[in-house]
Amino acid sequence: MPSGFLRALVFDAYGTLFDVHSVIALCEQSWPGKGAALSQLWRAKQLEYTWQRSLMRRYEDFARVTEAGLLYACLALRLPLDEELRRSLMSAYLRLSPFPEVREVLATFKASKLKLAILSNGSPAMLRPLVAAAGLGGLIGTIISVDARKIYKPAPAVYRLAVERLRAPKTAIGFVSSNCWDACGAKSFGFRTFWINRSGAPVDELGATPDHVIGSLAELPALIRRPLS
Amino acid sequence: MPSGFLRALVFDAYGTLFDVHSVIALCEQSWPGKGAALSQLWRAKQLEYTWQRSLMRRYEDFARVTEAGLLYACLALRLPLDEELRRSLMSAYLRLSPFPEVREVLATFKASKLKLAILSNGSPAMLRPLVAAAGLGGLIGTIISVDARKIYKPAPAVYRLAVERLRAPKTAIGFVSSNCWDACGAKSFGFRTFWINRSGAPVDELGATPDHVIGSLAELPALIRRPLS
Repeated sequence: MPSGFLRALVFDAYGTLFDVHSVIALCEQSWPGKGAALSQLWRAKQLEYTWQRSLMRRYEDFARVTEAGLLYACLALRLPLDEELRRSLMSAYLRLSPFPEVREVLATFKASKLKLAILSNGSPAMLRPLVAAAGLGGLIGTIISVDARKIYKPAPAVYRLAVERLRAPKTAIGFVSSNCWDACGAKSFGFRTFWINRSGAPVDELGATPDHVIGSLAELPALIRRPLS
Repeated sequence: MPSGFLRALVFDAYGTLFDVHSVIALCEQSWPGKGAALSQLWRAKQLEYTWQRSLMRRYEDFARVTEAGLLYACLALRLPLDEELRRSLMSAYLRLSPFPEVREVLATFKASKLKLAILSNGSPAMLRPLVAAAGLGGLIGTIISVDARKIYKPAPAVYRLAVERLRAPKTAIGFVSSNCWDACGAKSFGFRTFWINRSGAPVDELGATPDHVIGSLAELPALIRRPLS
């Protein structure tokens, strides 16, 4: 059995399985030369709003927070955003490209007894079409949204959702994220954690450090086969 | 009496009274041409860590979080940071320049019956020398640090500290910040809020909007003289 001591693998969605910056091409069509800057500020504000709203206890779902981030980024960069373009960019968020290695790696795990799940800031209404559009529905058994707790990552209540839904102890859950702070939050909660550091970023100092650092999902299967030393 | 319906004015410190980017000059000495980029990423990471640690319930004081942000920014930008430079930059944070209008505006209020206070993410050990170095000790009566609650802004527990320490109802407290999310957090809590938008940034959509938007502290006295309409 290739699962080692883990019974479930839980993946972050945005940035981990799906490339949030795959919207750049669409942005470039409307704002030539500005796509990357828009996408970067959009993503930064989207995340800030999740943390700030969680601390303020003013949760709104991820679709609304994502749209607020888009509006902010367009205003800040002085890029005109009409109603049609706004809708078009928000729909693009329901069809983000998975990273190239995702399907093959998830298929590898499908053959094992590991349960596969997504635990995401995304609302159920965002995650379902996203997973379906990428053809990953048959590979991911469980989709878990923070929306059930009305607070965002890295609050412990979010990671606890995975324990409850997967009926597995936290030490038997592997958590995979390309967002270092998310991997730190999951480690702080008690998961075995895998940080996908695609860009060679420094590790965040948050009082809990990911157990494993890998360059892409493709390195994951080899690590899963052996227990945490 | 020029205080209108307010009994106290509470100021954010970093970015509001004190220019966090006044460290750029020192950064430039060590890393010519990179000072602004370093200062910007340092500040961004410092704030992210406050939000993430608050949600993770892994509070560390602002000095530690500030230093972690500095180390991250230097690694990410591949700027060498030896022990001496690290100490030197951390000391610079205890002597940040106040914005040019600060002293004169605070002196204006000194003549009124308004209580003046700082409510800041900074630890007491950071705030005391900062206020003293700028010669504002005689103008600011009360220095309140989030450290008393071990959570960072914009958690409501932080703003509640000001109510407790100043013994004034929240509706009689004016809160001033150049950080829009901080002004939104204070508004959400129940203060009358003044956002100093020095850079002409868009407003953050966080479910609570600042009551007043001003370009610098110099516009504050005129607004304080009349009640909130």
